[in-house]
Amino acid sequence: LYLNKLEEFRKSKWFSNFTTLIIVGYAVVLGLKTSHQIELAFENWWFYLDLGITLYFLFEVVIKISVDKKDFFKSGWNLFDFIIVVVTLIPIDESEFIMIARLLRLFRVLRLFNSRPELKNIIDMLIGAIPSIIDIVVLMFIIFYVYGVIGSFLFVSAPSGLWENLFISMLTLFRVLTFEDWTDVMYEAMEINPLYWIYFVSFIVITAFVFFNLFVAVIIGEMESLRDKSKNSVSNKIDEDHEKLVKIENELAEVKQLLKDALKDKPK
Amino acid sequence: LYLNKLEEFRKSKWFSNFTTLIIVGYAVVLGLKTSHQIELAFENWWFYLDLGITLYFLFEVVIKISVDKKDFFKSGWNLFDFIIVVVTLIPIDESEFIMIARLLRLFRVLRLFNSRPELKNIIDMLIGAIPSIIDIVVLMFIIFYVYGVIGSFLFVSAPSGLWENLFISMLTLFRVLTFEDWTDVMYEAMEINPLYWIYFVSFIVITAFVFFNLFVAVIIGEMESLRDKSKNSVSNKIDEDHEKLVKIENELAEVKQLLKDALKDKPK
Amino acid sequence: LYLNKLEEFRKSKWFSNFTTLIIVGYAVVLGLKTSHQIELAFENWWFYLDLGITLYFLFEVVIKISVDKKDFFKSGWNLFDFIIVVVTLIPIDESEFIMIARLLRLFRVLRLFNSRPELKNIIDMLIGAIPSIIDIVVLMFIIFYVYGVIGSFLFVSAPSGLWENLFISMLTLFRVLTFEDWTDVMYEAMEINPLYWIYFVSFIVITAFVFFNLFVAVIIGEMESLRDKSKNSVSNKIDEDHEKLVKIENELAEVKQLLKDALKDKPK
Amino acid sequence: LYLNKLEEFRKSKWFSNFTTLIIVGYAVVLGLKTSHQIELAFENWWFYLDLGITLYFLFEVVIKISVDKKDFFKSGWNLFDFIIVVVTLIPIDESEFIMIARLLRLFRVLRLFNSRPELKNIIDMLIGAIPSIIDIVVLMFIIFYVYGVIGSFLFVSAPSGLWENLFISMLTLFRVLTFEDWTDVMYEAMEINPLYWIYFVSFIVITAFVFFNLFVAVIIGEMESLRDKSKNSVSNKIDEDHEKLVKIENELAEVKQLLKDALKDKPK
Repeated sequence: LYLNKLEEFRKSKWFSNFTTLIIVGYAVVLGLKTSHQIELAFENWWFYLDLGITLYFLFEVVIKISVDKKDFFKSGWNLFDFIIVVVTLIPIDESEFIMIARLLRLFRVLRLFNSRPELKNIIDMLIGAIPSIIDIVVLMFIIFYVYGVIGSFLFVSAPSGLWENLFISMLTLFRVLTFEDWTDVMYEAMEINPLYWIYFVSFIVITAFVFFNLFVAVIIGEMESLRDKSKNSVSNKIDEDHEKLVKIENELAEVKQLLKDALKDKPK
Repeated sequence: LYLNKLEEFRKSKWFSNFTTLIIVGYAVVLGLKTSHQIELAFENWWFYLDLGITLYFLFEVVIKISVDKKDFFKSGWNLFDFIIVVVTLIPIDESEFIMIARLLRLFRVLRLFNSRPELKNIIDMLIGAIPSIIDIVVLMFIIFYVYGVIGSFLFVSAPSGLWENLFISMLTLFRVLTFEDWTDVMYEAMEINPLYWIYFVSFIVITAFVFFNLFVAVIIGEMESLRDKSKNSVSNKIDEDHEKLVKIENELAEVKQLLKDALKDKPK
Repeated sequence: LYLNKLEEFRKSKWFSNFTTLIIVGYAVVLGLKTSHQIELAFENWWFYLDLGITLYFLFEVVIKISVDKKDFFKSGWNLFDFIIVVVTLIPIDESEFIMIARLLRLFRVLRLFNSRPELKNIIDMLIGAIPSIIDIVVLMFIIFYVYGVIGSFLFVSAPSGLWENLFISMLTLFRVLTFEDWTDVMYEAMEINPLYWIYFVSFIVITAFVFFNLFVAVIIGEMESLRDKSKNSVSNKIDEDHEKLVKIENELAEVKQLLKDALKDKPK
Repeated sequence: LYLNKLEEFRKSKWFSNFTTLIIVGYAVVLGLKTSHQIELAFENWWFYLDLGITLYFLFEVVIKISVDKKDFFKSGWNLFDFIIVVVTLIPIDESEFIMIARLLRLFRVLRLFNSRPELKNIIDMLIGAIPSIIDIVVLMFIIFYVYGVIGSFLFVSAPSGLWENLFISMLTLFRVLTFEDWTDVMYEAMEINPLYWIYFVSFIVITAFVFFNLFVAVIIGEMESLRDKSKNSVSNKIDEDHEKLVKIENELAEVKQLLKDALKDKPK
């Protein structure tokens, strides 16, 4: 009986809504804290607020586990929740690991994904879309790599230091890809050799062409899989109908033959 | 009889075309007024022109209401019209509320939407498209929020003040999203720690990936709903045909059996 | 006989290829002339080259008209050709109307469109695509107009002069639309009132949303028209089949009834 | 027997994986060499490493040729491999042709494409997509050319030298196309004549419109070819079914006639 009530409570809408509210409220507070003035004005309250949030999250996870038991850990999202709640229980000396403590607090906000199914679906959809572009990412990396190596050969003497080594060259190429002041980079390179515009224009044209095709390929691929799925039902019915027609044709031929035989017999 | 003529007048094409003309003319005048020279040259005329427009709009709305009666207020667009016309009747002391008076005058131009059905359709279509991206907007907000909080932790010491608090950080991130001088922001951050390029590149890659998938998802979703709608008629017909074929098959079997029975009987 | 040969000549491939070659060659020469050095070096040759081209184009058009006669003027492209050829025959005093003379010479290069059918098709396709976006252009203009008027109210005091009057404001908004240094414009406005970021961010979000939906709408619209066209043949066949099945069903019922009647009669 | 083992070896997975590993390792080394410090620290090792790689690639190609024989040269990818391996065997005096030597070494990394089928497929897909945009490229070139010639007429006096001759003008237009500081270019031109904004805005609008339509056309074209391919099977079946129905209808009519004749005969 007691367990039943707990289960009811765990699955009640206002429990999940209240948790969402707590997370959103916590997010707002974290946001306000980024303003130095507000952080100082309420300096004494942060500790108690943080403690309250920590306890509520602990309470919430304990209830969920006590109801779902093993099933709780089957969902990757729950595991993510659990780790965040447990890790933030560890007392951290803020003065030493301030960045880690802050990041952990921030990650609590990501619990929002688990408490809202619509967001969970989008994230799952986004993760599911990664394989379809993995090959393009590899190809883009090779293009970046080749242009990066060539760039750090040709423009190493550029005074801006944008081509110092392969890594910095690739970062510069990423900048060129976003069109961010890419002509400054090009004009600098063209002072070494006026023909070096070829390097930049070809890079932009090639990467734009690759992205363009990626886009078309993904849309077409999605459409194909969509149509195949829905077409099957119609296609199956048409196949069945085809077989039925063949059968009817044969049957009819038999009937006709029978009739003809009957008629032939009659006159006798 | 008098009402019939009024209705004819209200529904006549030249009445709505004339209203459109008045609105477009008014828009041109408002545009010219933004030039300080022109505003001063015709200073005395603006008042009479404004009065004329106000009276015409009042006249137009009165005619429409007197014909349509209650139906008039059923359309959101008409309500929007009515409010703008009524509110601009209130005499406002321009010296005090100059901004509000000017905005109200500008909103009159938006009456163009109601007087042209093509524009009304596009606006309705755009409003109808909002739900399909609402989840993505929430997700984008979370991404902005998380990066914003991290950014105002890490780069608070940046001299440009672009990461002063959460709100300014999110505005800066919006700027990075549009690729507007984002490398300036990054190079500044990299002076604090050369590894901070990860923050910017990951933000750009993640948001680009989310937008990319949003785009594909919306196109595919639209296509799916489009196809489902049009497929139903064909699908229904194929279903019916299938049933008919089954029935014909059975009938034919019966006919064959009858014939066979008849033939069996004959030799006797 | 003489006319037949002329017609053969006019339709021969090498005649149209040669014309294309002349146009491309002329385009290259015009390009070289933009370099001041080259223009001076060959100063005396330009006149004769121009005369040669003019005569060849005249010769070409005369042949085409003498063969096609009235049909020649039915194509808009031919008309475009004819006007360019005729107008460049008029002797223009270069020192006075140098710009017009130069533009006319440049327009000769556009005759390339008429001499290559692939290009003609693309241009026709592009022109055919205009109606599908005309409403969006009107909507965009209204958005630009409203933001332009508001902008020249609010930011008229900005020292950069980017909001001097409605026209300059709309040009500035076009710049914001292309994300070109838009934050500079925004930061300047935010010095008047820190809340003015709303103006810029809302403008970018709204126009991006409108473009996004335009894109999706055009793709879906194209797909719909494409599918309707191709579906008709299949759909018609399925409709016909459906009618046939109904007829067969009735026939079969009649046959069965006949058989039953026959069998009933027999035992007597 | 000895040949069989060689063939087994050539087709074994670990042979191709090991080659991939060597290429990736070589790519990493080339990347590290772009850092001047690392290049100096290991100065003596580069020669031996390069020799080792060269020998391994030679060994690999010899094995592949000895197994595949003539078939090896049928694939364009293999030919590409072969040329790179052979050319890097030629001893080059680095001090003289340092750039060529370095590029050849870099091209070795591109052998990755041949060793990974997924990458080969993407490259083949990209190359296959070129014809569908070739006409648009020609059209874009004409637009660039016409605007380039007009630009170098109108703005030749601009102090930035961005319109010095046709070629530089076209490079500047490419910059405008990427929205990179295009307003700087425009504001400079507007100092010559305030109406020259038309040149830039029209260029951006026209090229954007062309690209927009290109995108839609390619997606629709891909969809059409996709649907045609898959529709054929269903379409054929429906065609066959249609013929069958016609035949059944006729047969049934004959059967009915036969029956009627039989019944007519009976009373006699």
